[in-house]
Amino acid sequence: MSEDQQLRVSKITEGTVIDHVTGGQALNVLAILGIDGSGGEEVSIGMNVPSERLGRKDVVKVEGRELSQDEVDVLSLIAPAATINIVRDYDVVEKHRVERPSEVVGVLQCPNRNCITTKDEPVDSRFAVLEEGVRCAYCDTIIRESIADHIHVD
Amino acid sequence: MSEDQQLRVSKITEGTVIDHVTGGQALNVLAILGIDGSGGEEVSIGMNVPSERLGRKDVVKVEGRELSQDEVDVLSLIAPAATINIVRDYDVVEKHRVERPSEVVGVLQCPNRNCITTKDEPVDSRFAVLEEGVRCAYCDTIIRESIADHIHVD
Repeated sequence: MSEDQQLRVSKITEGTVIDHVTGGQALNVLAILGIDGSGGEEVSIGMNVPSERLGRKDVVKVEGRELSQDEVDVLSLIAPAATINIVRDYDVVEKHRVERPSEVVGVLQCPNRNCITTKDEPVDSRFAVLEEGVRCAYCDTIIRESIADHIHVD
Repeated sequence: MSEDQQLRVSKITEGTVIDHVTGGQALNVLAILGIDGSGGEEVSIGMNVPSERLGRKDVVKVEGRELSQDEVDVLSLIAPAATINIVRDYDVVEKHRVERPSEVVGVLQCPNRNCITTKDEPVDSRFAVLEEGVRCAYCDTIIRESIADHIHVD
């Protein structure tokens, strides 16, 4: 099959593969990781591809970057079934599941317009992660649904 | 090489491949096309991958959707070297270059806060496409740089 007919993204030499992302969430994953293309990082993405495990899934591969456990745990808020493969020299050297963190700093924006974190104060947002959602550490506002809509990374 | 080591996105059965996109512009391409994952469309993206022609390029593949010439011509504003391959039944059946359109409706937001198109009026934005940028058809404001920053698709 000619190259036109098959889009094969570059082989993973070294970096991180985030697999089994909830279908449709890849762009939110990139937002959380602060990736928009302008930094020159080589990234490959599959959105809504078929998956035996999930039915539909997204996959995000970041070449030349090994994500820290802290970085990937924030992803658990939008992609709880995600698996992380760290690749070095073409081999998968580490596998992780994402784990729900106890708190999330700086990634989400509080929906309360009067919260100190949303005014022009130099205060990062800080949310405690609960079973049912996340709670602002400053004003106690709880976000239960559509957490991805509150992603705001400067 | 095992599947873990190589991220091969699904073969193109039918759809559109947008190749030779300016490196780093893939997410803006998605924004212009109104794709954010929530619609369930199967999309594959390579960002900042090596290219003989461009040095670095992005590639966007949309399964099951044939983009119209109008849709792709808007892409010329951010990816003038892009090439469009229409695929049916595994074969490339059409190839196009993007052509600069005479005007762009609805994709860009006028930076003039007093423009009628940015107030809560039901008026789509409309820009004439010039050699040096785009000009608002309502208030004559010209955007010369960073056109992608003005993408605002409802």
